[in-house]
Amino acid sequence: MTSRIAIQVIKTIKDMRRLRQILHGTIGFVPTMGYLHKGHLSLVKLAQEKNDHVIVSIFINPKQFGPKEDFQTYPRNTKRDLLLLKKANVGIVFLPNVDELYPSGYESYVHVEKVTKKLEGKSRPQHFIGVATVVTKLFNIIQPSHAYFGQKDAQQVIVIKKMVTDLNIPIDIIVGETLRESDGLAMSSRNIFLNDRERKQANIIYKSLRFAQQLFESGEDNTKKIKSKMKNLIHTTLGHVDYISISDPQTLKEVAKIDKMVLVNLVVRFGKTRLIDNIYLKKIK
Amino acid sequence: MTSRIAIQVIKTIKDMRRLRQILHGTIGFVPTMGYLHKGHLSLVKLAQEKNDHVIVSIFINPKQFGPKEDFQTYPRNTKRDLLLLKKANVGIVFLPNVDELYPSGYESYVHVEKVTKKLEGKSRPQHFIGVATVVTKLFNIIQPSHAYFGQKDAQQVIVIKKMVTDLNIPIDIIVGETLRESDGLAMSSRNIFLNDRERKQANIIYKSLRFAQQLFESGEDNTKKIKSKMKNLIHTTLGHVDYISISDPQTLKEVAKIDKMVLVNLVVRFGKTRLIDNIYLKKIK
Repeated sequence: MTSRIAIQVIKTIKDMRRLRQILHGTIGFVPTMGYLHKGHLSLVKLAQEKNDHVIVSIFINPKQFGPKEDFQTYPRNTKRDLLLLKKANVGIVFLPNVDELYPSGYESYVHVEKVTKKLEGKSRPQHFIGVATVVTKLFNIIQPSHAYFGQKDAQQVIVIKKMVTDLNIPIDIIVGETLRESDGLAMSSRNIFLNDRERKQANIIYKSLRFAQQLFESGEDNTKKIKSKMKNLIHTTLGHVDYISISDPQTLKEVAKIDKMVLVNLVVRFGKTRLIDNIYLKKIK
Repeated sequence: MTSRIAIQVIKTIKDMRRLRQILHGTIGFVPTMGYLHKGHLSLVKLAQEKNDHVIVSIFINPKQFGPKEDFQTYPRNTKRDLLLLKKANVGIVFLPNVDELYPSGYESYVHVEKVTKKLEGKSRPQHFIGVATVVTKLFNIIQPSHAYFGQKDAQQVIVIKKMVTDLNIPIDIIVGETLRESDGLAMSSRNIFLNDRERKQANIIYKSLRFAQQLFESGEDNTKKIKSKMKNLIHTTLGHVDYISISDPQTLKEVAKIDKMVLVNLVVRFGKTRLIDNIYLKKIK
C-alpha cells in the first residue's frame, strides 16, 4: 500500500490565493481543459520531478473557442479527471468556474500579434487571444515558478513562450513531448469523437509526418514537394487536410527550402473532428 | 544629520530580478516617467508609509505616445530625479532602457477594450494599450504587493484597476490624490512647457472644475449646461478645450443628468501643451 496525500479541489480564486500563500518553494503548474489522458499525466510527472508543489487546473476556456467551434461538445468528465490526478499523487487541483474568471463587464485581453496570425490563427482569429488571456489569468492566480505545456499544440507553445518573454512573466515554460498511442496517433481529448473507421485511419497523420522526415532525410528540401506528397498520402484515407505548414519555428513563416530546423504542422479533419500534430525536421549531422 | 540608506540604481531586468529575490515583506511600487514633482513624491510617501520596501521606476514608455505626440520632447532630467528620490529616502530606483523592454520582434500587448475607447482613448487610440502593456511588464519584473498611481490621470487609474481585476493581477492599486500648485493647477511634468502667460492662465482648468462643483451644489444636474458654462469660462483665456466629459466613474459613459457620483474630466491645450485634470462630483448628503 502506497501512502497518498489527500487531493485538495479548489473552486474559487479566493481559496486558491489563500492556499497559494502558504505554499513555499517551487510550484509546477499544469493548465488543462480536463478529459485527461496520458499526455497530461506525463506533464504532471515532469512537474512533480522538478517542483516542491504541483497544481493542476481544469478549465474549459470559452474564450479560446470560436462561435462555430466545439466548446459545448468538448468532452468533460471531472470525476474521472480527479480520480486520475489522485492516482498520480497530485495534491492540488484548481477548478474555477466560467462566471468567476469572466464576470459580466470583462474586457481585458492579451494579444500576441504576429505569430498568432499564422496556422491556427488564420482560421481561428480569436483563439490565441483566448489562450494568452486565460494563461495570463491562471498564472496570476497560481503564481507558479514553472508551467508545463504539451508539444502537440506547437503553435500554442510558441505563443505562450513569446508572451512570457515579451511581458517579462517570471515563470519558466517547460514543454513536454507529445505522447502517442501505439499506432502513432497523438493523444488528444478529441480522439474520443472518432468512430472506429476514423480512429483506425487517423494514424495517417503521424505517418505523413514521419514520411516528411524520410523525404527530408533522403535529400528532399523543397517544402512544396514534401507537402504535396504528404497530402497525397493523407488522401488515401477519409482524412481531409486543413493545412500542412513547414515553417520557421520562431516566426512560423513558411519556408520554401529547408536549410535550417523547421516545424512541420499538420491539421487533418476526420468527419467533424479536427486533429493536430507536428514534428521538427533538422539535419542530424 | 539624518541617516540615509544608499540609493541603488538598477538598469537591467536581470539585476532587478536578482535584487527582488532577496527582498522580503511588502513592496510598494511607484512607476513614473521621471521629471519628478511633488505629486510623484507624495506617492512615494504613501508607499513608504505602508511597505517594507519601495521601488520607483523611471521609464518614458514610447508605446504610450502616438506618432504625433511628445515622446521626443517629453522632459527628462534623471540626475535631478535621482537626487529627489535620494532625498526622499528611496532605496531602489529601476531605470530600464527601451531596447531591453521592447527588443526587436516585440509583439505582446494588453488591451482593455471598452473603457479605453472613451476620453483620452478617442484621440489617442494606442495610448492605453501602451500604458497597460508597460504596467504589466513592470509589475512582472518588480512583483510588488502595492502599486501607486496619481488621481490626476483618472482614466489611467480606471484602466489599470480594470486590468488588474480582469487579469487577476495579485497587486493592490493605491490612488494618491492630485497635488496642486498654490493657484490650483494640477502638478504635471508637462507644466514646464507653459510660457509665463500660459502658466498664469492655466489655473482656469481647476477653476472651471470647481465652478462645475458649485453649479452642481446649487442644484444644476444637467451636464450639457454645466459643460457649456465651463467652456465659456475657459474661453476667457488662451486655453483651448480638447474635451469636457461628465461620466460614470466605472464605465466612463457620458451622463446627461447627474443622479449619482460622476467624474468630470477635462483636457485643455495651452499652445502645444495638453493639460489634464478631473474632479468627482457627488451629493454630500
